[in-house]
Amino acid sequence: MTTFKTLEWTGKAVRLLDQTLLPGRKKTLTIRDEKAMWEAIKALRVRGAPAIGVAAAYGLYLGVATREPNSTPALKKCTRKVARYLATSRPTAVNLFWALDRCQKVVESLSNDTPAGEGLTQLLSEAKAIEREDIDTCARIARHGAPLLRNLTGVITHCNAGALATAGCGTALGVIIEAARTTPFTVYADETRPLLQGARLTVWELLQAGVETRLVTDSMAATVLQRGMAQAVVVGADRIAANGDAANKVGTMPLAIVARHFKVPFYVAAPLSTFDASLASGGLIPIEERGGGEVTAFGGTSVAPPGTKVFSPAFDVTPARLIAGIITEVGVLRPPYRSAIRAALRPAKP
Amino acid sequence: MTTFKTLEWTGKAVRLLDQTLLPGRKKTLTIRDEKAMWEAIKALRVRGAPAIGVAAAYGLYLGVATREPNSTPALKKCTRKVARYLATSRPTAVNLFWALDRCQKVVESLSNDTPAGEGLTQLLSEAKAIEREDIDTCARIARHGAPLLRNLTGVITHCNAGALATAGCGTALGVIIEAARTTPFTVYADETRPLLQGARLTVWELLQAGVETRLVTDSMAATVLQRGMAQAVVVGADRIAANGDAANKVGTMPLAIVARHFKVPFYVAAPLSTFDASLASGGLIPIEERGGGEVTAFGGTSVAPPGTKVFSPAFDVTPARLIAGIITEVGVLRPPYRSAIRAALRPAKP
Repeated sequence: MTTFKTLEWTGKAVRLLDQTLLPGRKKTLTIRDEKAMWEAIKALRVRGAPAIGVAAAYGLYLGVATREPNSTPALKKCTRKVARYLATSRPTAVNLFWALDRCQKVVESLSNDTPAGEGLTQLLSEAKAIEREDIDTCARIARHGAPLLRNLTGVITHCNAGALATAGCGTALGVIIEAARTTPFTVYADETRPLLQGARLTVWELLQAGVETRLVTDSMAATVLQRGMAQAVVVGADRIAANGDAANKVGTMPLAIVARHFKVPFYVAAPLSTFDASLASGGLIPIEERGGGEVTAFGGTSVAPPGTKVFSPAFDVTPARLIAGIITEVGVLRPPYRSAIRAALRPAKP
Repeated sequence: MTTFKTLEWTGKAVRLLDQTLLPGRKKTLTIRDEKAMWEAIKALRVRGAPAIGVAAAYGLYLGVATREPNSTPALKKCTRKVARYLATSRPTAVNLFWALDRCQKVVESLSNDTPAGEGLTQLLSEAKAIEREDIDTCARIARHGAPLLRNLTGVITHCNAGALATAGCGTALGVIIEAARTTPFTVYADETRPLLQGARLTVWELLQAGVETRLVTDSMAATVLQRGMAQAVVVGADRIAANGDAANKVGTMPLAIVARHFKVPFYVAAPLSTFDASLASGGLIPIEERGGGEVTAFGGTSVAPPGTKVFSPAFDVTPARLIAGIITEVGVLRPPYRSAIRAALRPAKP
């Protein structure tokens, strides 16, 4: 079991584990308004597509509540404004926009004579529902995905798609940890440059879960595959287009290409909230570019000469044809993805 | 022009630029015996296959000279002993063994009544010849390779195969800098984890050469290729088997696989001294594994939790079928490599 809470509603604020300081320091932040939440998302203190969604929903409630709207029209106006603001924190993970939209819909559907206090209560309930559902979704993803890893001796993952990236047990890492209960394989964790979420967060989670782990640089995963030391790759996703193309932390796409080269199945694990049916293909997914300082320096130590220019996309897009299966809470989607995704996203009959 | 000397014979010792401290500090070491040279090679103060060869040749001379053998039989014994010792410094770059063998042959061919001083002089001359030839070889490689990069807008390189890796202008980076004189492309330099030779050394050389450069993490090179921002990859090599399989810094092989996926030509630049005709294929090349500390910490800052286990191969092997051409001092070798390499290595007719 995990010994940490990624994110917790206290009744008045959100307590967040500051992931930029892990594993060296376990510091909790108390977030009381939308500005602090925006900063926490932007600076990757909370990260991982599902966790960003939950954080944004609470951030929206906090931002609206601190403004104390005295009518439902004022509440609606306020909700739109705060949602627009929070939406500017990071561009790629669609769960951010999905969660904000979902909360906004609750508010927009209120009749204008609803007491504002009642609207606020509903906004908070929706944030709590998003959190609760994410916990359940992660558990289902783990159950659906674990059988794919039976009888393997090694599995590779990239970045962190674990409990730290969600409100629950994680997506890719949830699958891996669930499978490791019955199959004692070794997990090869890509360190995941530039921000080392693999080295700092994934290894930390795996050690706590008691799973045999080897840290590798992103460039060493290919040797693990070439030597037959791992027989599957499982990663998370930040946004999946209608055709199955998947954006995830930079380094995922070359790993998928290399896995295909060595005929090793490459799986993506993600909740349905990570799918963006409005985008026909991955080329349309906005890819965040981050500051060069994340590449040219580490831990305050400069590693490149002064004046070094950097190209630093934070995500890349893995073409659907390289993905063997997408593990969701409703089951493992298989190619052809366009129809499989359409069916999975169809609202369940009442 | 470069403003540094990778390695210099002073008449009594070798002056080496300590590459582990670059680009932050430009410190020169004076190497006076084989132990100091062994340490400098092992710790990567001098690195790059051709530079290791030159360093080892001088190290052999220094080790033998400090023992002051008083006869040619004593000189021979001494040379064998010091060569065996230096050969244990690093296992993958074949230039180390090639240079030691070449120097040993000079000594072994002496008649036993040659004055020991004369033998020592010949040993030093051979080291100087290896250095001089490397300078010439690099210039030829640059001339043969540069036309391959005409009219491109971007080129990717991995690790450092520049002036810092040779006694001359470099192999892969020599080609790139030569081509950049007429084609103003952008070089995307992989940072090259774990020891960041790309960020620290290649960017440093390219900035001095005035070539437009962007630093990327190793995992971002795939995005550069996916977006069509680079149309060729050029890297060096540490050992090339008889069939063209090439060992180079870890991360080279996945880059070659990704380049092939995006139909971008992948070139290796290396002197003939990097070929090991005794090995039928790359699977036989010994791959150095280095300590986990190079991955778990950076600049004294720990980046992974205590107790993290690491898998850290320093090199990987790129299959010959992924290599579009091998740029050598005698021209660009093309597939099928087995015959092309055999012909290139055949001793020139007198």
